[in-house]
Amino acid sequence: MAYPGYGGGFGNFSGQMPGTGPPVLPGGYSGYPTYVNSYPSAGDPMWTYFTAVAGQDGEVDAEELQKCLTQSGISGTYSPFSLETCRIMIAMLDRNYTGKMGFNEFKELWTALNAWKQHFITIDQDRSGTVEHHELNQAIAAMGYRLSPQTLAAIVKRYSKNGRIFFDDYVACCVKLRALTDFFQRRDHLQQGVVNFIYDDFLQGTMSI
Amino acid sequence: MAYPGYGGGFGNFSGQMPGTGPPVLPGGYSGYPTYVNSYPSAGDPMWTYFTAVAGQDGEVDAEELQKCLTQSGISGTYSPFSLETCRIMIAMLDRNYTGKMGFNEFKELWTALNAWKQHFITIDQDRSGTVEHHELNQAIAAMGYRLSPQTLAAIVKRYSKNGRIFFDDYVACCVKLRALTDFFQRRDHLQQGVVNFIYDDFLQGTMSI
Repeated sequence: MAYPGYGGGFGNFSGQMPGTGPPVLPGGYSGYPTYVNSYPSAGDPMWTYFTAVAGQDGEVDAEELQKCLTQSGISGTYSPFSLETCRIMIAMLDRNYTGKMGFNEFKELWTALNAWKQHFITIDQDRSGTVEHHELNQAIAAMGYRLSPQTLAAIVKRYSKNGRIFFDDYVACCVKLRALTDFFQRRDHLQQGVVNFIYDDFLQGTMSI
Repeated sequence: MAYPGYGGGFGNFSGQMPGTGPPVLPGGYSGYPTYVNSYPSAGDPMWTYFTAVAGQDGEVDAEELQKCLTQSGISGTYSPFSLETCRIMIAMLDRNYTGKMGFNEFKELWTALNAWKQHFITIDQDRSGTVEHHELNQAIAAMGYRLSPQTLAAIVKRYSKNGRIFFDDYVACCVKLRALTDFFQRRDHLQQGVVNFIYDDFLQGTMSI
């Protein structure tokens, strides 16, 4: 085991948010289904939000995604997502580095966002729009990531403002965790939690996320 | 050489911005001097900006750094730095993951910021507050980073808005490049541009930046 003392290791990948449905699908991520074989349909409510901003190329960039998510009301009573968080969302699914997102990726994002939001709501019991350090810790563990206390502490500090974690930063943290884990895992051919990175590849993945 | 076809390799570390003064010092980064042996002084203009916001603990967090940099006027006619960029600035020098920055690190940041700003001004000839893709490419090369065209393209796309790069994003990009390179280099004991990462350590560095 690559991480003695830190549980099942390597983000687990089969971990999932409570209530998000099916476990890992072939080719999927951490319990979030992929939609590579689905096609846009006029009856799909997501399609309405998406096409309203996607324009002729059928893809959205970070500014368009921000508009799209704001219009959809997915943030509920929480503040709309910042442009920076939308950029990380694009990067999470943009495996060919186009800086844009198609409809299938948008649906994949949508599913993940709903799961993260649901979990945030359950821990933000006073509806303050923020959660505490230990609650983000617990959420990360609930998603199946097995990290050292030092790494957890560094992450929690990075995504805090005045000692609390806001919804936008919580989601940015979830997106980044998933994207970096995905990037790492795709290079960890033996699934042992160890990867030999060359500098250029390391920067390509981490600078974009 | 680890990067056939991509020049001197591995960010070079001795590369420096035009006009930034001395080359690499022992313990320094990419031509930016460190200040580990300097002491705050009432005669130092930086000290005024810093103490005005640092409070009793003598350190600034991201919100305080944003206030401090805005008050100092370092952005000139460009928009003040976003909170996200300030967080990355803290992370760049926060090697013990406290989420804060002391006065010596602040001065180190200040020197780097001035060099980046100077370079941005020289390429933003029409004073639009933005530069073009190929200009960011050239700036990265001028800083001594030797990256593949694919990695450069991914980076430039990530830090663009509507096809142009704003000052805040330009600085965020420079900060992140330096921080990630520094993180990588500290683990590349043989300086060969290759590092064997375990998952937890990989996440600790990249999630914070």
